[in-house]
Amino acid sequence: MKERVLTGDRVTGKLHLGHYAGSLQNRVILQDQYESYVFLADVQALTTHFDRPELIRSHIREIMLDYLSVGIDPGKTTLYVQSMIPEIAELTIFFSMFVTVNNLRHNPTVKAESKNSSLDEMYYGFLGYPVSQAADIAFCKATIIPVGEDQLPHLELARKIVRRFNELYKPIFVEPQALISETPRLIGTDGNAKMSKSLGNAITLDASTEDLAHKIKRAVTDPARVHKNDPGHPGICPIYAYHRAFLPQDAAEIREGCERGSIGCSACKERITSALEMLLAPMRERRAYYAARPRLVDDILMAGTRHTRSLAQETMNEVREAMSLDYFK
Amino acid sequence: MKERVLTGDRVTGKLHLGHYAGSLQNRVILQDQYESYVFLADVQALTTHFDRPELIRSHIREIMLDYLSVGIDPGKTTLYVQSMIPEIAELTIFFSMFVTVNNLRHNPTVKAESKNSSLDEMYYGFLGYPVSQAADIAFCKATIIPVGEDQLPHLELARKIVRRFNELYKPIFVEPQALISETPRLIGTDGNAKMSKSLGNAITLDASTEDLAHKIKRAVTDPARVHKNDPGHPGICPIYAYHRAFLPQDAAEIREGCERGSIGCSACKERITSALEMLLAPMRERRAYYAARPRLVDDILMAGTRHTRSLAQETMNEVREAMSLDYFK
Ligand code: SF4
Ligand code: SF4
Repeated sequence: MKERVLTGDRVTGKLHLGHYAGSLQNRVILQDQYESYVFLADVQALTTHFDRPELIRSHIREIMLDYLSVGIDPGKTTLYVQSMIPEIAELTIFFSMFVTVNNLRHNPTVKAESKNSSLDEMYYGFLGYPVSQAADIAFCKATIIPVGEDQLPHLELARKIVRRFNELYKPIFVEPQALISETPRLIGTDGNAKMSKSLGNAITLDASTEDLAHKIKRAVTDPARVHKNDPGHPGICPIYAYHRAFLPQDAAEIREGCERGSIGCSACKERITSALEMLLAPMRERRAYYAARPRLVDDILMAGTRHTRSLAQETMNEVREAMSLDYFK
Repeated sequence: MKERVLTGDRVTGKLHLGHYAGSLQNRVILQDQYESYVFLADVQALTTHFDRPELIRSHIREIMLDYLSVGIDPGKTTLYVQSMIPEIAELTIFFSMFVTVNNLRHNPTVKAESKNSSLDEMYYGFLGYPVSQAADIAFCKATIIPVGEDQLPHLELARKIVRRFNELYKPIFVEPQALISETPRLIGTDGNAKMSKSLGNAITLDASTEDLAHKIKRAVTDPARVHKNDPGHPGICPIYAYHRAFLPQDAAEIREGCERGSIGCSACKERITSALEMLLAPMRERRAYYAARPRLVDDILMAGTRHTRSLAQETMNEVREAMSLDYFK
């Protein structure tokens, strides 16, 4: 059996270079090695954005263009919309019967994301986020889940949930394996630890040549470098982080040049700008192609969703049989 | 628009006289006045019986026979299986986004049923029971919910949830109204406040003539009545409770006779036995008819479920439109 890899994105904003470095790039490689599924996590987005559904709606096609523009190939990767697979909701409900509140609240991600509110103030759906993630993984029997280190506890809980299901009923699920991504979170142009659309420090994947150049030009650098020959600290500079992420072969040279004061920030920025321009240019072309064909984009997403739904129905038949809920068989 | 009444039973055991007095009897009347839906709550049963799904399975057809035997008429009432309507799971997930843990844990029923365990030890699905109940009511747009006093807080929360949905998105749901049942909980043959199959103090609806007579003969009575003329306290006697519930026209006479010591317990028991026999005899006949036609029973349930599913799909189309999740429309 071919391994099946699953990834997805919460549909809350356009994707940017942080997503590319941390995940999208990798997906383009993985789709050649594995049976690959990528989903638009609109139900997950609702856990935090239930009062702004139009925001989710407006990004569905935008993110599809992001996917297609980076080279996710609908011939190799099945793309689907989470909310259009009701079987995920059913499986979430079944899983929720045997997961304790304790299992959920001590999950570090729920803990971190909710540190401003007590358990009591938490939304029930938000608390259940890891259960719904377990269902996301289980329903399509994904075997490989690329995750960052910080997502490991979620995956561990998902593994625990499917193991419990298998023990309680019948062993129909495989425990998914983590494929740990080495890429650290990409720093924002303002030096903030996280590149994020809402912080205004992101370079989106649809950035124009001018936009890109402007964003890099305005990006912060090491404030110690007032004059060209001042020795710098690349470790605190977003530009160096971009070199490492997108031009790794030159990173050592940049580091040295910066630390010795032998390369100026302008030159350093120009180099990364042209590297990023080379990265983004073909993306822009693919985006323009698909943006001009909205029906095609919808068709790709609908076909992927239909295919995934039939997979989901097969799984739910097994689930119902395992749980003795197949009354009329 | 005709009012729509919804009731259901957790599929955890055969139904008994307590169910009949408290609910089934009433449903038979209501089906003539309203558009009537009755569901087999197998997903609700899973919240407490997830580790015994075969118990749920074994009672699906049993409870269908109970329904049909008491006179629930498939020509007037739509019967369906909860787990076969995935739309209920979807709606539960959507509702769960905007209901806080606080709303749930202070619900008296969750509180009472969980008094032996802390919030932490509670199962996530069990905690969410009222959310799933709100979805049960909302998806089919039931307008009237017959409930006991103790169920009122659940219904109040359901009303609150649909009100919140209507405010957040679009006013597509009606707030269901309670139809409060006057019937108190039926006392068990052992004097326990609750008649329950698992306590062994129940008279099930399929009781044979012998079984009924035996159960009544062995039922406890007021222990003060050692001799025939001892004055009794009907208030503490299950037999008197049965008189009130099933032979109300004679209850005043029984009360007086018991209090004065002018009627003996044997005679009193004989009277209720023959009244109950008159109640159960036609039920046995209808049960025998349907028990001999298992295919017919399945067909009734499948047809009702199919009909309900199409109703559910209509509602979910509205829900998706209201929530801006109807991407391809
Ligand atoms: S030379 Fe490059 S890495 Fe060093 S501070 Fe300037 S922009 Fe940053
Ligand atoms: S006379 Fe009837 S009501 Fe009174 S104690 Fe005996 S059985 Fe109960």
